[in-house]
Amino acid sequence: MNQSIMKTFTVLGAMCLGLILSAQESVIATRQANSASGRMLTMEETILSRSLSPENLYCRWHDDESLIVFKDGSSWIYNIRKDKEIPYSHIASEPRAFIKGQSIYLRTEDGGTIPIAESESGDITYGQFVSRNEFGIEDGIFWAPDSSKVAFYRKDESKVSRFPLLDITTRTGSLKEIRYPMAGMDSENVQVGIYDIENGSVSYVKADDFGYDMYLTNITWTPDASGLLIQVLDRSQKHMRLNLYETGSGNFVKTILTEDNDKYVEPQDPVWFVKGRNDLMIYRTDNRHGYRNLYLCDMDGNIRRLTEVDADVAYIANDGKYVWYTSAEVSPVENHLFRIKIDNGKTERLTFEAGWHEIAMSPDCRHYTDSWSSIAVPRVTDLCTSSGKRVRNLLTAADPTLDYAYTEISLGTVRSADGKYDNYYRLVKPKDFDPEKKYPVIVYVYGGPHSQMVKNTFLAQLRRWEMYMAQRGYLVYVQDNRGTQNRGAEFEKAIHRQCGQAEMADQMAGVNMLLELPYVDKERIGVHGWSYGGFMTISLMTNYPDIFKVGVAGGPVIDWKWYEVMYGERYMGHPDENPEGYAMTSLINKARNLKGKLLICQGAIDPVVVWQHSLSFIRECIIHNIQVDYFPYPCAEHNVMGKDRVHLHDKITTYFEDYL
Amino acid sequence: MNQSIMKTFTVLGAMCLGLILSAQESVIATRQANSASGRMLTMEETILSRSLSPENLYCRWHDDESLIVFKDGSSWIYNIRKDKEIPYSHIASEPRAFIKGQSIYLRTEDGGTIPIAESESGDITYGQFVSRNEFGIEDGIFWAPDSSKVAFYRKDESKVSRFPLLDITTRTGSLKEIRYPMAGMDSENVQVGIYDIENGSVSYVKADDFGYDMYLTNITWTPDASGLLIQVLDRSQKHMRLNLYETGSGNFVKTILTEDNDKYVEPQDPVWFVKGRNDLMIYRTDNRHGYRNLYLCDMDGNIRRLTEVDADVAYIANDGKYVWYTSAEVSPVENHLFRIKIDNGKTERLTFEAGWHEIAMSPDCRHYTDSWSSIAVPRVTDLCTSSGKRVRNLLTAADPTLDYAYTEISLGTVRSADGKYDNYYRLVKPKDFDPEKKYPVIVYVYGGPHSQMVKNTFLAQLRRWEMYMAQRGYLVYVQDNRGTQNRGAEFEKAIHRQCGQAEMADQMAGVNMLLELPYVDKERIGVHGWSYGGFMTISLMTNYPDIFKVGVAGGPVIDWKWYEVMYGERYMGHPDENPEGYAMTSLINKARNLKGKLLICQGAIDPVVVWQHSLSFIRECIIHNIQVDYFPYPCAEHNVMGKDRVHLHDKITTYFEDYL
Repeated sequence: MNQSIMKTFTVLGAMCLGLILSAQESVIATRQANSASGRMLTMEETILSRSLSPENLYCRWHDDESLIVFKDGSSWIYNIRKDKEIPYSHIASEPRAFIKGQSIYLRTEDGGTIPIAESESGDITYGQFVSRNEFGIEDGIFWAPDSSKVAFYRKDESKVSRFPLLDITTRTGSLKEIRYPMAGMDSENVQVGIYDIENGSVSYVKADDFGYDMYLTNITWTPDASGLLIQVLDRSQKHMRLNLYETGSGNFVKTILTEDNDKYVEPQDPVWFVKGRNDLMIYRTDNRHGYRNLYLCDMDGNIRRLTEVDADVAYIANDGKYVWYTSAEVSPVENHLFRIKIDNGKTERLTFEAGWHEIAMSPDCRHYTDSWSSIAVPRVTDLCTSSGKRVRNLLTAADPTLDYAYTEISLGTVRSADGKYDNYYRLVKPKDFDPEKKYPVIVYVYGGPHSQMVKNTFLAQLRRWEMYMAQRGYLVYVQDNRGTQNRGAEFEKAIHRQCGQAEMADQMAGVNMLLELPYVDKERIGVHGWSYGGFMTISLMTNYPDIFKVGVAGGPVIDWKWYEVMYGERYMGHPDENPEGYAMTSLINKARNLKGKLLICQGAIDPVVVWQHSLSFIRECIIHNIQVDYFPYPCAEHNVMGKDRVHLHDKITTYFEDYL
Repeated sequence: MNQSIMKTFTVLGAMCLGLILSAQESVIATRQANSASGRMLTMEETILSRSLSPENLYCRWHDDESLIVFKDGSSWIYNIRKDKEIPYSHIASEPRAFIKGQSIYLRTEDGGTIPIAESESGDITYGQFVSRNEFGIEDGIFWAPDSSKVAFYRKDESKVSRFPLLDITTRTGSLKEIRYPMAGMDSENVQVGIYDIENGSVSYVKADDFGYDMYLTNITWTPDASGLLIQVLDRSQKHMRLNLYETGSGNFVKTILTEDNDKYVEPQDPVWFVKGRNDLMIYRTDNRHGYRNLYLCDMDGNIRRLTEVDADVAYIANDGKYVWYTSAEVSPVENHLFRIKIDNGKTERLTFEAGWHEIAMSPDCRHYTDSWSSIAVPRVTDLCTSSGKRVRNLLTAADPTLDYAYTEISLGTVRSADGKYDNYYRLVKPKDFDPEKKYPVIVYVYGGPHSQMVKNTFLAQLRRWEMYMAQRGYLVYVQDNRGTQNRGAEFEKAIHRQCGQAEMADQMAGVNMLLELPYVDKERIGVHGWSYGGFMTISLMTNYPDIFKVGVAGGPVIDWKWYEVMYGERYMGHPDENPEGYAMTSLINKARNLKGKLLICQGAIDPVVVWQHSLSFIRECIIHNIQVDYFPYPCAEHNVMGKDRVHLHDKITTYFEDYL
């Protein structure tokens, strides 16, 4: 890249951050270094310190005029009308339906319990999430709006293969076995039951669209509780039907609309009924105009586009007249609030400070809280009217990093490998940066779907370990790539059937940009990532063995055939119908290309990316007599947390210090 | 140590090797370096080459006058009378009794099969070794001398806890579960059955000396097949009864003799009947005169000492008139053949060349083969008469190392920490050794019971990797210590209830001797060992954190409570009655002392030292935020073999090269 166009904008006011330069690679915002005399981060602080995150308030609406505010472990109720705080003592009420083991029970009014659905065997689970949390599924119990009925998931895992984990915390060591459906293998069978409180009967939703392997997602009750809407997908995830079922019998009523895509459809949202209407709903999809936009849809499937923006949009609330939504239309690294009038489509932008705005709307849609930050603004929380007028500032957080030797952080863009997109990056410069010197680089990478590593939030979404390394003399680079979220369907689906390929190409566009910087030591490029980022790390190490000298991969996917059905087959297809894609992306086939120093770390009881992956990779290295390093965290699951995480980052750091 | 008494004897003739100097530490033999212009070993050669081992013959007596000779994968019959070789084509005859699954079957003469004992469940195993191969138990089927009956083990593991291993070679990964009885936990129950071929009946030996937890060891038939001798131990292994049972009914006849020891009794041999006698046997124990000696014993337990040497003795054969045995009486690092006249105890030494002699006696006790080597003698195999007269030389192997840059190897002694014993060591000097320079040291350690690392065999029992490291500039030191074998009961049992303590003290006596050598770099002492040696490595690293800079431990025992009942309780006692011993030796309690760089390697499906050990140790390091390194061999059991072993030794080497 041409240095002359590497223009650096110091953040003088938040407004200037919205600008995107027209140059091929551009710095769009910089957060200058603190005084160099500041303290260095310790590893404990890096990983565990809360005081280094800006002060924050978590606000949840209690009713139309009061907020429950959570801060630093305490909570209170704030009445917005009276501008007054009152104590809040939350007494969790016992839920009416509750899970015990793998069954669901109902608490009766006389204090007794009666079963809603009792598990017949260890293979059957009622009332818990299904499909391994994909498709936005987090719960397994869904109350009707009038509380007359409760819908629930039934999951049958009898055909799902088991994976053994070793629990070393018991006296003699013991088996912890999980069910894990791997791509191409038998999967779980899911049904939806509806329990009628009054007569105690259960009927099952008669969903037979796609046979045994169906995904029953995004369950939504109609406001009058007569209907249940389910977004039903086939196993290939290429075909979705938004079906309506009758909630007394479970009978199929109709298919309201369908979505088909030769890559995949990925419904992630329920539908939202227009306030006061039982026959009109708001529906979000990226399958019609290339971006996740909002649509108005009636029960016959008559559908009208509501938002008309070439950017991903997220639903916030509606009051029957307006719909509030946030979107990436100002910039993919910013999140702004808009409202649109349902009847005429007139749109108003409500937030203007450059940065990322998180919105919580009151039940009556008359107020919202706007909690936002940007690269140099730690955190501001305002109470606003729903037309965007600021009522009151609830929080303006101080910069918690001022005593520390935080270095310069820039937010910029680099052109994607296919030339079609700007990919966003943050670059953290070393302490006492001297452009005449040469510095080693650590690329931290994730790169997988549903992620966005770079945002115009405080310090551009910096992970504190990056600063730890920058303080110790490294340039740290983090970039999003094709496949990540919030950039529309084409960008996101570029990875289909070939995970890692477009992502690597885009990461290499960033690395090539770095290699042209005069202060980058070309011989000392490192890479680190976890999970999908572990997969990316090893992919980069083995596809570009002459570029990357040192890598640390955590909990890496090694071959998609060992990853789960739901996520894996969406992106990679069934192994039988995409053998070349599985072969191309498998790191088993790449192990022999490894030249640099590679450390793999993994939680030894990881139930997400099972141990099969990393152990198989090192096995392959052993077969080819290629040295590789490894470290397991014996009691850690997929993400190594707490004090283990301090140890992990010491290990990662030591590895780069020893070898990069 | 005083350099002036470090006298070096070059091996001029084999005879001089037998000398032991009286100085506190003495070099007793040195094998000079080859020409320095020789080749360096590659790692492949180091681990896998067969051509670097001296040529060898494996001789087994076919009958009184012919030997079956195995060499380099081919075999022939050598007639000693005719001095003639004839082809040997071994056709394995089908065994009469055979194992299928966990049951034993008999092949009938008409080609059918009938069951001897069929397993009732997965917990019950017939006809296979028991007690995890301790007490010399290798088989589970014992034919009567007249083939009228067959005795067999029955093992019930229903109370033994299971340990899960992960098999990554299957499509989705799968569970490989083993039974593993840990110290202090429920163990296996063993019985001995006797099957009568003629009437097809089974009777069980009525052994009820010590209840559920008994060891039934060293099963021996009387020559007339009427009696079965079993050495029965209690679980504490402090009490042994040599019992006679009637083989028709299984009834107990009598206890012939007992052994009791407040540390442990460890019978490891059957009894050997004096040829032609049904009522007189040869019995070996170290429980009567401090060394494993041979005794004559009749069926009433009248016992007479046969060998009277303060050294461990091994039985070879008897012809009714003489007993042949080898012993350590010349030197613990040498093994020599003797014969003793049964009637008058007159003893003759039969081998005289200094070194280690392995003897195979002909069935009629008229000839034996003597296969021997010493530090500078690669291998000689002679055919001799049983009175020690050499008849013919069968092999004189050439030195296979001559083209290689093999360095100087010395065999010497250092005083044990308690001042009572000479411990033997070998010291390998670096290539192009210059006494004016300083060299790093690698201590390779095993140190556990039943081992002897240093012998006066070719290159003093050198492991080739030591030479690999010596060629790359390291001093390599290997020493036996109290607890190892072939040195008598007191020496061996010094470790009782405190494994690792006497061993460490003795290893440190050796290290302190090294630290006084002018050419040792005191700041660069490394240590490496596997299994018990892994335990020793981590014990040394954590007990002497200021001495050892780098360690590599393989398959280490970390806490004896996780090791098996049979071996573990013998040396450490039951955890309930020796809590202070378990606490003192547990490396879990030592993890926080670790200062140096430590790499732990282990086979991930190790069924001997289960993964609980090393994973628990690194877990403890993680808790205390102490860095440690780890590498698992995913498809390796306790000993990492074949190509994995090449990779392992590259890894070990790299670790020392990077950090020592």
